[in-house]
Amino acid sequence: MINSRLKADLIHSSQYGRNPLCTVSSYQQLSPDNGVSRIAGSLENKKIRDYAVQCMQECGLQISIDSFGNIFGRKEGLFKNIGSVMFGSHLDSVINGGQFDGALGVFTAIDAIRRLNKESFSNKRPLEIVIFTGEEGSAFGTTLLGSSAFTGYLPVEEVLQMKNKEGKTFKDTMQEIGYYGIEKKDLGDIAYFIELHIEQGPILYQEKIPIGIVESITGLLWMYITITGEPNHAGTTPMNLRKDALLAASSIIQFLNKEAKKLVDNKGSSTVATVGKLDISPNGINIIPGKVKIGVDIRDKKEDNIHLLKEKMLEKIKQLIEDLKLNIEYDIAISIPPQPLSAEVMESIKVSAEKLGYKYKFINSGATHDAQNMARITKTGMIFLPSINGISHSPLEWTDWEDIEKGAQVLTETLKILAGK
Amino acid sequence: MINSRLKADLIHSSQYGRNPLCTVSSYQQLSPDNGVSRIAGSLENKKIRDYAVQCMQECGLQISIDSFGNIFGRKEGLFKNIGSVMFGSHLDSVINGGQFDGALGVFTAIDAIRRLNKESFSNKRPLEIVIFTGEEGSAFGTTLLGSSAFTGYLPVEEVLQMKNKEGKTFKDTMQEIGYYGIEKKDLGDIAYFIELHIEQGPILYQEKIPIGIVESITGLLWMYITITGEPNHAGTTPMNLRKDALLAASSIIQFLNKEAKKLVDNKGSSTVATVGKLDISPNGINIIPGKVKIGVDIRDKKEDNIHLLKEKMLEKIKQLIEDLKLNIEYDIAISIPPQPLSAEVMESIKVSAEKLGYKYKFINSGATHDAQNMARITKTGMIFLPSINGISHSPLEWTDWEDIEKGAQVLTETLKILAGK
Repeated sequence: MINSRLKADLIHSSQYGRNPLCTVSSYQQLSPDNGVSRIAGSLENKKIRDYAVQCMQECGLQISIDSFGNIFGRKEGLFKNIGSVMFGSHLDSVINGGQFDGALGVFTAIDAIRRLNKESFSNKRPLEIVIFTGEEGSAFGTTLLGSSAFTGYLPVEEVLQMKNKEGKTFKDTMQEIGYYGIEKKDLGDIAYFIELHIEQGPILYQEKIPIGIVESITGLLWMYITITGEPNHAGTTPMNLRKDALLAASSIIQFLNKEAKKLVDNKGSSTVATVGKLDISPNGINIIPGKVKIGVDIRDKKEDNIHLLKEKMLEKIKQLIEDLKLNIEYDIAISIPPQPLSAEVMESIKVSAEKLGYKYKFINSGATHDAQNMARITKTGMIFLPSINGISHSPLEWTDWEDIEKGAQVLTETLKILAGK
Repeated sequence: MINSRLKADLIHSSQYGRNPLCTVSSYQQLSPDNGVSRIAGSLENKKIRDYAVQCMQECGLQISIDSFGNIFGRKEGLFKNIGSVMFGSHLDSVINGGQFDGALGVFTAIDAIRRLNKESFSNKRPLEIVIFTGEEGSAFGTTLLGSSAFTGYLPVEEVLQMKNKEGKTFKDTMQEIGYYGIEKKDLGDIAYFIELHIEQGPILYQEKIPIGIVESITGLLWMYITITGEPNHAGTTPMNLRKDALLAASSIIQFLNKEAKKLVDNKGSSTVATVGKLDISPNGINIIPGKVKIGVDIRDKKEDNIHLLKEKMLEKIKQLIEDLKLNIEYDIAISIPPQPLSAEVMESIKVSAEKLGYKYKFINSGATHDAQNMARITKTGMIFLPSINGISHSPLEWTDWEDIEKGAQVLTETLKILAGK
């Protein structure tokens, strides 16, 4: 059975960002119209931050805030001059999202401190919770904002001057909600980073496995393809005289899907490839489409596979230009290499799960996470918990209380291993 | 060389609906940004109507207007109690359309009267020009509005109460521009109807043939297909667990194109099939499309082919539902059977073209026309003139002056044959 205090925290915090305001304590209570909206820097984001800070203070943690609004809660260790174990997640959400995406990693982190305090665990290394700002990118248009700034991936001044949809700067926004601080961490002082998060995919749920040990965070390629044909009268233009941009687009959509499936089937790869965005002009039922722009998302834990699929797409585009006499242009908007996680941290999670007797599975993360940034500066691991039906970024996102308890226990055990080293 | 008065009328009237105001007298002068906008009932539509009425009065025609804003210009014949030859087209346009779509049929009709007057032709039958209201459907959402009302296909009161985008009724609109009349025609008194129009397709232009004799006006089927899958995270949902509505839509788009081409290639049919409209939700690059609605336009001069293609589409939908476990619904929005035109009128056009020594070709109309309505009540024919590059409903629509002169001559000769019977 789940620890009553952790459950209470998660239910209490589930009200923040809901309209009408209510708490949700079971899957059955979820409403597709009433998810949580805790955009970074909003009043709702402030409220859940305040609650988490209060919980951390009650555990005796020492609070500090940096100039990116990242919140830290530190418990010193027995040894000085030894790297810390940092752990945590984020408290912002997408618009109309789920209550556990991010928040689960923060409140299980706080509860792990409580559990360690209760058994009077003596940590050699400092233990330090982190709550990163703006992981979702709904406010300032950049995902993983707080961790990118924290790890030096984005220049300080650039972050502080970013503007949200209301035209307010990041700095002003953080000052307004009371989370613009002066803490400056030495990145070299962080020995390990660990993040617990919902899987956001269906694998653990379908296989009924409570613990996912993340091996790597997916590589990502975003490509926009613009096809220019000729808009023409649908009734008067014979089939052989058409330059139909949507027909070419549909051919690309089919091709991408087929080739991605081939990689999965033949090589057992983790490839996923999606056309999720399509803009068509002029978009009239009786007009042959003159222009179509599609957005392509390709991910894999192996960079080779992303590269292979990209090359195949470029060949396909070349072939379509020749066959259909259309103009096709493409633009690579994002290209992020896959990020393998630390074998040492993975091993610690595995040992913890085995000790507790919980089934686990090594798994790839198809979504991006703050851990991706942290993995560039320190040994990093992630614990995934099952998402019912694989749903996330949706009011219908849920993770069972039993799985949450198991996750919190595994996190606590892993902290004991890493902080005891 | 083109009759100078007809050319002058067409150049003068080309200013109506252009912004900035200018006349256009050659293909080279066309600007993609400055087509004509003469929405039914607009001030620009009134101006070109006024000019056409003035021209008809100068030819000695007796003007009358019915309650649908249709304008008539009548020249009585030698014989009483004999059916008239009605001829004409429309003066409204799409938004940012071409100057000849409709207007060419009206001003060549007026010029035919001038030519007949000049040679003191004695018409046995009454000759009667008609200018139909709202052929394009841009104002009140219904195409062929004036001719549908005139032929009794739409109830009078329904038409008068139709509202445009500003919420004004059809009746008020016509009253405001001074074209709400009381004329009531006896449909039984119309022996023939003939309409000269631009082809709006590429066939005559590509084959360098000045005169198209329309055998039939295409049958038309509009079908909306709504595919409901599951919106999901593009990064975390494995390829084999997806319900991608856009993938199913792209399969339908490819299938429809392939099957239509098969009909054309194997049966030499006039089939055209298009997906011109696609609405996608949620339309994010990193979200598997949950819902896609596509608009399908199928046309053929043979109803059997339309039916065959529709049945194949329904089979395909059934197969996709089974294979992909998606929900797919469809709705037949429009189903208009093909309209064969009068063999007698076709023969008269052919004889006229042969007499004048102009090449002609029997052709199917892929677009709808007021003649489609008139063919239900009387013997009806159409003369098509070449559209450069097959372009229409575009500021780049054009027909050469030489072809216009040939068309005007063929129309005049045909009227002589029909009015002399």
